[in-house]
Amino acid sequence: MPRYKLLIEYDGTPYAGWQRQDGPKSVQSAIENAIKAFCGAEVTLIAAGRTDAGVHARGAVAHMDLPQPQTAAKIAAALNAHLRLAGEAIAILAVEQVGEDFNARFSATKRHYLYRILNRRAPPALECARVWWVPYRLKAEKMHEAAQILLGRHDFSTFRAAQCQAKSPVRTLDRLDVRQDGECIEIRAAAQSFLHNQIRSFAGSLVEIGRGKWRKEDLRQALAARDRACCGPVAPPHGLYLMQVDYD
Amino acid sequence: MPRYKLLIEYDGTPYAGWQRQDGPKSVQSAIENAIKAFCGAEVTLIAAGRTDAGVHARGAVAHMDLPQPQTAAKIAAALNAHLRLAGEAIAILAVEQVGEDFNARFSATKRHYLYRILNRRAPPALECARVWWVPYRLKAEKMHEAAQILLGRHDFSTFRAAQCQAKSPVRTLDRLDVRQDGECIEIRAAAQSFLHNQIRSFAGSLVEIGRGKWRKEDLRQALAARDRACCGPVAPPHGLYLMQVDYD
Repeated sequence: MPRYKLLIEYDGTPYAGWQRQDGPKSVQSAIENAIKAFCGAEVTLIAAGRTDAGVHARGAVAHMDLPQPQTAAKIAAALNAHLRLAGEAIAILAVEQVGEDFNARFSATKRHYLYRILNRRAPPALECARVWWVPYRLKAEKMHEAAQILLGRHDFSTFRAAQCQAKSPVRTLDRLDVRQDGECIEIRAAAQSFLHNQIRSFAGSLVEIGRGKWRKEDLRQALAARDRACCGPVAPPHGLYLMQVDYD
Repeated sequence: MPRYKLLIEYDGTPYAGWQRQDGPKSVQSAIENAIKAFCGAEVTLIAAGRTDAGVHARGAVAHMDLPQPQTAAKIAAALNAHLRLAGEAIAILAVEQVGEDFNARFSATKRHYLYRILNRRAPPALECARVWWVPYRLKAEKMHEAAQILLGRHDFSTFRAAQCQAKSPVRTLDRLDVRQDGECIEIRAAAQSFLHNQIRSFAGSLVEIGRGKWRKEDLRQALAARDRACCGPVAPPHGLYLMQVDYD
């Protein structure tokens, strides 16, 4: 069966996350329904990153096998048409036929995320469910400086959700940049893979640094503690975006 | 009575435009209701730009007179609290006390607008009511080059809505820049004042240039015709943002 790679954008607001589940609607089930409406096939999408409820994507990747070959352009146009018809906040940005050995989840070499903070007194009017609104003043340079402590290979137990299903809490963090862009503070993270809630845990802890409640040393100790109780408050999901997934 | 200048951000989607009217809710009435809830006063806001339904603002300006003096910080915090409580998509970014001779509408020396086009095959998922989605390929450089024809003092009858109430169709356009930013095409316009639908008429006509349906010469002729029938299709409101208003 021919295999296809999908590049996907979605607004996480109306979904209970990526993963299909009984009851609330998910991004996965919305796309699987569009595939069924398009070609009648019951397919299961395999995704590079199963985002939580409220988390957005600008460049999520998934793969699927179709019973019959179709041109990539036709698949993209048909899925977008069905998604719009169903009122879904999901767009298929690109479709590409790939080999049978491609796996969106296991072939991924790097995942890139963005966390956006709106740092100003006034609440957001145009980007309500798109940013985390932090009304007290944050120092982005301090956050960036402290963030560099987290780079490299570590046991990230402190920054991992209790319900995380990964076998090991050890991960290698390749990038954690914090920079100010006007009223926004952007945190960019990259690694081959992340633990559950790892970036939101980073973002919440870095805000403690930015507001002056934690010093750099506190972050170092939190990491070394390998204890969930030492994490800062976990940042809300609606500031997080899955931006890009790399493959060899 | 002390006079205050308000800097305002809003999502135009849920509103019938800036101006208060019977029936549908407007940005003006939402803020006036918040002022009444805050201090009991029935005030009338005077705005620098009365945007249409669906048009957004990142830096709209209005002024009001209050019966009693209040600190600027207190006014901003109270209005934002009341606006959020009422579920409005409006934020007061700043409040400043000004002299009695300040008039948000008549003292304005320049108005800056942004028109955003999402130019890609796939529909928007994250910015549905924030951009005009144009799926066919546009050449931003051609649009920018042609746009320069419109700069300066002209009779803009071609680019003016039938219901425009301005006495004269003559305006002086200071800036009309078009540039590509990834998948977005941004049109930035500035002038002391604009006619009704002038920027959306520009945007629609420039898209005709960008897709190759009009040449530069067609835009020149459309301007010279001083005839509404010669305008390109008017661009939809949800791509338009009032960005900034300048005062001396």
